Amino acid sequence: MNFKEALRERVGHVETLLKEYMPKEEGYQKTVIEAMNYSLKAGGKRLRPILTLEACKIVGGNEEDAIPFAMAIEMIHTYSLIHDDLPALDNDDLRRGRSTNHKVYGDAMAILAGDGLLNYAFEVMLSNSLNKENPAKYLKAINEIASSAGIYGMIGGQVVDVESEDKQIEKEKLDFIHLNKTAAIMVGCMRAGAIIGDANEEQLQEITTYAKDIGLSFQIVDDILDIVGDEAKLGKHVGSDIENNKSTYPSLLGLEESKKIAHDLINEAKMSIEKLSDDREFLNGLAEYIIDREY
Amino acid sequence: MNFKEALRERVGHVETLLKEYMPKEEGYQKTVIEAMNYSLKAGGKRLRPILTLEACKIVGGNEEDAIPFAMAIEMIHTYSLIHDDLPALDNDDLRRGRSTNHKVYGDAMAILAGDGLLNYAFEVMLSNSLNKENPAKYLKAINEIASSAGIYGMIGGQVVDVESEDKQIEKEKLDFIHLNKTAAIMVGCMRAGAIIGDANEEQLQEITTYAKDIGLSFQIVDDILDIVGDEAKLGKHVGSDIENNKSTYPSLLGLEESKKIAHDLINEAKMSIEKLSDDREFLNGLAEYIIDREY
Repeated sequence: MNFKEALRERVGHVETLLKEYMPKEEGYQKTVIEAMNYSLKAGGKRLRPILTLEACKIVGGNEEDAIPFAMAIEMIHTYSLIHDDLPALDNDDLRRGRSTNHKVYGDAMAILAGDGLLNYAFEVMLSNSLNKENPAKYLKAINEIASSAGIYGMIGGQVVDVESEDKQIEKEKLDFIHLNKTAAIMVGCMRAGAIIGDANEEQLQEITTYAKDIGLSFQIVDDILDIVGDEAKLGKHVGSDIENNKSTYPSLLGLEESKKIAHDLINEAKMSIEKLSDDREFLNGLAEYIIDREY
Repeated sequence: MNFKEALRERVGHVETLLKEYMPKEEGYQKTVIEAMNYSLKAGGKRLRPILTLEACKIVGGNEEDAIPFAMAIEMIHTYSLIHDDLPALDNDDLRRGRSTNHKVYGDAMAILAGDGLLNYAFEVMLSNSLNKENPAKYLKAINEIASSAGIYGMIGGQVVDVESEDKQIEKEKLDFIHLNKTAAIMVGCMRAGAIIGDANEEQLQEITTYAKDIGLSFQIVDDILDIVGDEAKLGKHVGSDIENNKSTYPSLLGLEESKKIAHDLINEAKMSIEKLSDDREFLNGLAEYIIDREY
């Protein structure tokens, strides 16, 4: 099985699981649940939940144990997209080729659906961590997700990104944005998976390097695709960074240098997991996919 | 010490603790932290954190252990107010006599500050639950907060409230709104405190009845104050329910009947904690304060 087939299989697996873990569309509060599930079902790369499960597996854990964490991380990622797309923030009408949440359900419901998903992510992790043999491990894993998603992680990056609009910023600040907005949650989701898989400190360190590197590289590639990408494949408008006068890796360092940095990071990522397991073909393939992707 | 003095002392205690637990206003993401703390510092009754600490104490626990949960619940309550006040939702300019978050920081930052507070609430609970002797207890307590704040609790109530605007709704649905929008989080915060205080099942049941009753009564009184309240004391605009054609206890059942129901609930609340402890003066006073309050 080549990487693309393996990825497709894992995406399918995650989507099957998501359907199981989605809240039921019933009760007086049905609309918000529909709105939450609308965005959860909207597709996407499912990268983060796949990373959670892989991290658990590569340190020798049972990936079944990490499933609630994988589901939660996709819910957190999805809520951040719903709030990002709001008129007060990016004001995007399209996401993954479909109408954004607020275009379908209205701004009020989109705000609440985002809140609902963030909260539900914790509900899923917590309710599935009760009555376990090693509750301390589960607390530690949920704590990783929480700290990577908040103001010292994803939200922190998002805030600085919003504040940097229409401004030229220095590379240090751009790295802060990229590392927090994108890489932090990848680090968090992989560390959580690895903790559930009983990783030791050294393994956790290797996983952290891998996740940080592919996360940063992912964001640099995002910047690059906003210049050279294909709108149809991306399912979103291209060129918005330049239109919005946004500082990006290509705008600060040029296209070629940006590509080189993205490649170097991917190589470092692959090296960091060399010691972890002989069965690292998929994570190697995933690292390469990050820079080779067209959407 | 009479009840008012005891309450003032506890409010002061909670505000001192909140200052300790607020994230530091520093780093690139400083603005969102300022926005979060702006609303955390905006005052209010501090009812929920006080309830958490009292619940822990009345079942014989050490209230120190429940502090992170008390702080988290106030953060969750505060985030819900920030998002509630947004133009897409209630569009309120004033809250507790001060400009609402989005009037000061803008809509984008207010959305992110709300997200930041919800996430930070979990960060506070989780990071303070690591390395405890009884991790399972902490997981259970965080789970109570999470489930009471989400789509099967506070957010669920909020959604149905938003959808019921400009519509006449039946009492069953109004009760769903009140029980979920307001009472659920009071139940959650008291159950969490009681769990941290090692409550047994029977104690948890009494605490749950107390919290649910004062929560529902609190909301009925809120409806009443929107008709007969003093704008200066409330620190907010009065009469908005009638202007917005909102179904409330007074609009469905009349003012007098609503007052009676609120009183009956308070009596039931007081009875439910009779068995818990002889030292229940404060919680009795608090129950009475709920119906006697003018703001």
